[in-house]
Amino acid sequence: MNFFSSTFKLGILGGGQLGKMLLYDTRKFDIYTSVLDASIDAPCKVACNEFHLGDLMDYDAVYNFGKHVDVLTFEIENVNTDALEALEKEGVKVYPSSKTLRVIQNKAKQKLFYRDHDIPTADFSRFAYSSEILDAIHNGGLEFPFVWKSAQFGYDGTGVKIIRTEADLEGLPNVECIAEDMIPFKNELAVIVARNNQGEVSTYPVVEMEFHPEANQVEYVICPARIDEKVAKKAIDVALKVSKAFNHVGLLAVEMFQTKEDNILVNEVAPRPHNSGHHTIESSYTSQFEQHLRAILNLPLGKTDSKVGGIMVNLVGAEGYTGNVIYQNIEDIMKMPGVTPHIYGKKQTRPFRKMGHVTIVNEDLNEARKIAEEVKNTIKVISQ
Amino acid sequence: MNFFSSTFKLGILGGGQLGKMLLYDTRKFDIYTSVLDASIDAPCKVACNEFHLGDLMDYDAVYNFGKHVDVLTFEIENVNTDALEALEKEGVKVYPSSKTLRVIQNKAKQKLFYRDHDIPTADFSRFAYSSEILDAIHNGGLEFPFVWKSAQFGYDGTGVKIIRTEADLEGLPNVECIAEDMIPFKNELAVIVARNNQGEVSTYPVVEMEFHPEANQVEYVICPARIDEKVAKKAIDVALKVSKAFNHVGLLAVEMFQTKEDNILVNEVAPRPHNSGHHTIESSYTSQFEQHLRAILNLPLGKTDSKVGGIMVNLVGAEGYTGNVIYQNIEDIMKMPGVTPHIYGKKQTRPFRKMGHVTIVNEDLNEARKIAEEVKNTIKVISQ
Repeated sequence: MNFFSSTFKLGILGGGQLGKMLLYDTRKFDIYTSVLDASIDAPCKVACNEFHLGDLMDYDAVYNFGKHVDVLTFEIENVNTDALEALEKEGVKVYPSSKTLRVIQNKAKQKLFYRDHDIPTADFSRFAYSSEILDAIHNGGLEFPFVWKSAQFGYDGTGVKIIRTEADLEGLPNVECIAEDMIPFKNELAVIVARNNQGEVSTYPVVEMEFHPEANQVEYVICPARIDEKVAKKAIDVALKVSKAFNHVGLLAVEMFQTKEDNILVNEVAPRPHNSGHHTIESSYTSQFEQHLRAILNLPLGKTDSKVGGIMVNLVGAEGYTGNVIYQNIEDIMKMPGVTPHIYGKKQTRPFRKMGHVTIVNEDLNEARKIAEEVKNTIKVISQ
Repeated sequence: MNFFSSTFKLGILGGGQLGKMLLYDTRKFDIYTSVLDASIDAPCKVACNEFHLGDLMDYDAVYNFGKHVDVLTFEIENVNTDALEALEKEGVKVYPSSKTLRVIQNKAKQKLFYRDHDIPTADFSRFAYSSEILDAIHNGGLEFPFVWKSAQFGYDGTGVKIIRTEADLEGLPNVECIAEDMIPFKNELAVIVARNNQGEVSTYPVVEMEFHPEANQVEYVICPARIDEKVAKKAIDVALKVSKAFNHVGLLAVEMFQTKEDNILVNEVAPRPHNSGHHTIESSYTSQFEQHLRAILNLPLGKTDSKVGGIMVNLVGAEGYTGNVIYQNIEDIMKMPGVTPHIYGKKQTRPFRKMGHVTIVNEDLNEARKIAEEVKNTIKVISQ
């Protein structure tokens, strides 16, 4: 299979921002691309060769789309896996595979997978329905506090709640879920692993999420993480173990906790380019998007070293603003050295909506960190 | 004028490879783009918001296209400047300006411009017709050898010929032209200058073209140039002088000779992203394409320092092959560290056709140079 040939077609399920960034790098290699998305306004539309309208959870939509491509990938996990499996049987290369995706789509299955493969993760209990949790508490099988997570369709923090009292259980959807130990962690880390079909593997340096001291919200993704080398090595080893266990092809972003005792626990994974790797566009020899393409097209993987230190700041809609978006002071941040805004092109802002991200690169990571703080204090996503 | 606003429109004249690379970076800032090109198969089609079909030398096509955009730029010099001038009068921001482009479009005017502005350049004579050259030789006003250059429509080496004897004059088109002194140069250098409408100026590091020792063809563009610091400073000063003389807005690539006596002579300029700046995509804090956008949108200019050493190798069609293109051994070069191929997407190759380029980046420029040679010896653009 030669992806430079004029008949080769890469299918991408999902036409959002990640897909759009992936598409930039398909242009570099002149790969013919076809995108399926449910929205006629999908950001990908402007960057792909073919655009098809359809629901990613609909069997027929995914199957009919997929049977016209050579390699199929996705930029979002909420995809009909039965259709992916049917396509695999018919010879379409689906990367990551339907099998991997099925495990990852369900948080309970994902946690069991870690347990079965001896991958360190926080202890948890699994429930068919949230209503069963109360019984477990009353029977002494579960103690406050814990983290409730819906097994299905959790994305970007929805479907997660910290439960400290019985009252916190009220209003939870009565769905399959897990109750997970709360981990008092020192750091939240992530490692992106790439693996191609020949089993060639590479890892990006460990990144660190720096939290706002009060708001408990991730403010900065920092590469490389400012942690002990031994801990970094441990995190990379765990990430590689997860990748191997899944036998996955493509990118796998492994999110982890560094506990107070410097143990590494896997939190969750994403089988695709990931927010924690956006900095690689500017900071790495190979961007995560190019690396994903290399992996799923079974090409040699690119060098994952950093050229310079990189920090990423998410651009989210400011509280109190809903409507046509304005990027206040964007020109001021563009004056700062090594600062690149990435605007996702959503026309409407609302509080906490992800509207873009900003990358700050510098030879000196401490200097980058200072500039990142200036960026954060300067730009504001508001409405007209 | 806010380019993030939903009504802003950037017009690009020319839908070729340079335009395509420029369009990647418009995506980053979510700039709405409209492209005019004469070919229904223009590479830009897949990356712009709007595509219009039309001849760039046709007054009406350019004028009617331009009056619907806010800022108009071009990726190729062969554009109808009367239409640009009319648009400027109606308030469309045309960057670079019609005035700059008129001078650059005509090599005789360009040379006179350097002479008028005290910019060092090789001596030359101007002729209304090539047929007048013989008289000048016979009258003792011109001596062999010299370089004949057609005043108009020279692009990528066409319209240029070295004249050593009277016989070499035979077959030249009888057009407006110049006869220029042959400069026995040590190095061919280039500096890309960016300038926005507020007069903010920045320069990229000097690059060097390394020639094949026998074929006398540029093999590598190397950044930074391996030259004395004093010479580099001189080259940058000359480039800045040219930029100021043109009062230009956007990118200006200034190609220069370093003479045997370490003088700098301007050869020619291009008022747009340029082959000598392709390496910046991977090696620089700000790619030349992003910098061009920043300049013409009157945004703060980006940092032009190199993150790492960069070398660019052009991918041209091999001799003896015409037809559906194959990139032989492309996977082998993708195994080499820091190597990124850029495939332009032309389906047909022919001898010496520019089909793409490859960038090699490395912290150590000597190491990059070694890898670049391996790249050059490995990949071959052939046909099926």
